Amino acid sequence: MTKKILLRKSSDLPCEEAIFTDMGIILDSGYELNDFRISFKSYGTLNNDKSNAILICHALTADQFVTNNNPITGKEGWWSNMVGPGKSIDTNKFYVICSNVLGGCIGSTGPKEIKSDTKSPYGIKFPTITIKDMVKVQKILIDEIKIDKLYAVIGASMGAMQVLQWIIDYPEKINNSIHIAGALKHSAQNIAFHEVGRQAIMSDPNWHNGNYLIKNTKPERGLSVARMIAHITYLSEEALHRKFGRKLQSRDLVSFGFDADFQVESYLRYQGSSFVKRFDANSYLYMTRAMDYFDVSEIFEKNMNFNTENNDHIHHCVISFTSDWLFPTNENKEIVKILNRTNKKVSFTEIVTDKGHDSFLLEETDFYKTISGFLNSNINGRL
Amino acid sequence: MTKKILLRKSSDLPCEEAIFTDMGIILDSGYELNDFRISFKSYGTLNNDKSNAILICHALTADQFVTNNNPITGKEGWWSNMVGPGKSIDTNKFYVICSNVLGGCIGSTGPKEIKSDTKSPYGIKFPTITIKDMVKVQKILIDEIKIDKLYAVIGASMGAMQVLQWIIDYPEKINNSIHIAGALKHSAQNIAFHEVGRQAIMSDPNWHNGNYLIKNTKPERGLSVARMIAHITYLSEEALHRKFGRKLQSRDLVSFGFDADFQVESYLRYQGSSFVKRFDANSYLYMTRAMDYFDVSEIFEKNMNFNTENNDHIHHCVISFTSDWLFPTNENKEIVKILNRTNKKVSFTEIVTDKGHDSFLLEETDFYKTISGFLNSNINGRL
Repeated sequence: MTKKILLRKSSDLPCEEAIFTDMGIILDSGYELNDFRISFKSYGTLNNDKSNAILICHALTADQFVTNNNPITGKEGWWSNMVGPGKSIDTNKFYVICSNVLGGCIGSTGPKEIKSDTKSPYGIKFPTITIKDMVKVQKILIDEIKIDKLYAVIGASMGAMQVLQWIIDYPEKINNSIHIAGALKHSAQNIAFHEVGRQAIMSDPNWHNGNYLIKNTKPERGLSVARMIAHITYLSEEALHRKFGRKLQSRDLVSFGFDADFQVESYLRYQGSSFVKRFDANSYLYMTRAMDYFDVSEIFEKNMNFNTENNDHIHHCVISFTSDWLFPTNENKEIVKILNRTNKKVSFTEIVTDKGHDSFLLEETDFYKTISGFLNSNINGRL
Repeated sequence: MTKKILLRKSSDLPCEEAIFTDMGIILDSGYELNDFRISFKSYGTLNNDKSNAILICHALTADQFVTNNNPITGKEGWWSNMVGPGKSIDTNKFYVICSNVLGGCIGSTGPKEIKSDTKSPYGIKFPTITIKDMVKVQKILIDEIKIDKLYAVIGASMGAMQVLQWIIDYPEKINNSIHIAGALKHSAQNIAFHEVGRQAIMSDPNWHNGNYLIKNTKPERGLSVARMIAHITYLSEEALHRKFGRKLQSRDLVSFGFDADFQVESYLRYQGSSFVKRFDANSYLYMTRAMDYFDVSEIFEKNMNFNTENNDHIHHCVISFTSDWLFPTNENKEIVKILNRTNKKVSFTEIVTDKGHDSFLLEETDFYKTISGFLNSNINGRL
């Protein structure tokens, strides 16, 4: 098989940078993906010995636009309070790279992209993607940039799942790992919430069995409901109470009807309607499925026990948030337990906050300090 | 205004017994409901001095068929493990009555019923109903049966809200109250989950702005999604983990697709599809709205403080469940605090269980003992 990889700037894509390849890869499902594109974005400068690269793995609905302007939304990147010159992940020191995951919808090959042989969008014929598949193509990208070893791989939520998969599959490629608000396996409750979101999308007649793009429509209402459900799980009850409580929206009295009387309703409707502008519904199906399928509880412990020559060098940092009920502290601690009982270098911090799972996106001083402290202490030692 | 109330057996209704009235009532919203029907079901025998009547207030999607066969579903009534001869709520001793709430869909006047002047279903033109309105018509029913004083009023969840409303509005009509898994006000998180459910229904094109009945269709997919969302909140993470975990449904390996691979998905889909057979979508909108609007936090404390001559006699029992995250113990305790600081007779029990909010429907020995103990100790004193 001819292997052809093109790394190029692209002006016709939101991604700005991308690799295109016709190198076939076999996915977890057994499907052979013959050609694909991985779009990415980088910040800072790769140093001469290519030892300062940090790979950020994004979460379910995020993208490669970690910081600065996001050309899709016109807003700041999702982690702009964390990543930048002088920030906790300091782009004066580090070369930060983030790629849109395989199956995503911001420039990487996913269900909304045109399949080369049929000249039609994949739609629901896109192969099922796993976290392992996402990491497999990230590895191809990192190899292509000729980075021998990542200074760190960092991710929260679905990104944290990718971090664990990196540790399992390519431990020799990473020096440090930062795992934020994740778990060794997706819980029954989380699968349940995802399934309801999927049903909301697939129940929308505009979904057309996944073929909405060729029908020139989109299942916006279903996707909006899916986003609203998910959004509740990203917050905590305390945060919702503090932020909204039972406060009314632009009125003094309830309307005795089905308007968005309460601020929390108005907020959720906004979250739903703004999401559908930037995200592909089929991609949402595939991403949630990848998370549901994720379960490395056995393989992770096995690898930590037996592949020690490959992974003993990694410094691990695991972070959880007290009010995160989607990926609660006890699930994050399972990872720490395994790392401790296999004698790995691991630090663990539980950040006290009432902001729920979304804490990783929000201002949390202790959280910033934990990340910068971990990265800088390792800089002193090895960079 | 002529007041006409008919109490009669009805063979053409699922309710078996109902009152029909053209006595107009003014609802909380200001709407004048000129005629309405309240269907109910009773068990056991009313004693001569009519002192053994217990009113059970049902929850969001339940109905008047508390025990024995439910003619709508063909299954056992929703509280058949609690209510019956020799059971915790003993129909050998008590006359148990339960009415379908106003706005419901099992025989009482609600959005699917025909409006007398237009000869067409109310649909979304049905007036908004509050918990106070539900209790107001229950009071009319109780008066009609010539019960001067209820031995007890009992309810869980939305039923518990009705119990609080009874204590506020008609304290002179009740001797005992049992409040299970409720709160003084619906929380922001609970409003949020309800709002997503409503959006799922209203996004279904078959909803037709609430006029689906005259279009001879039903928003079944939207209602099913709404039920699935709600159902997750009725369970606990522990219960989902214990019951399903990541177990697969009728297969050894994942399908790499969007089938219900996991048992929890299959279970939720079943919950959704079976619910739409028995429940009206508009009624679901009105019931959830009534719960969202519920907030008696100020009036309850005020009444307990100042209307003491009317309510001092009531024995209160408040029950919560450790794993209930919809109506958590701390919210139930707010009621107990007020009752204690206003020197009322109140007992409080937190049942240790991993079954979540739905514990009130499930086998919980401690729960049964708490109910029967409370009811019987009061029997000894006063019946």
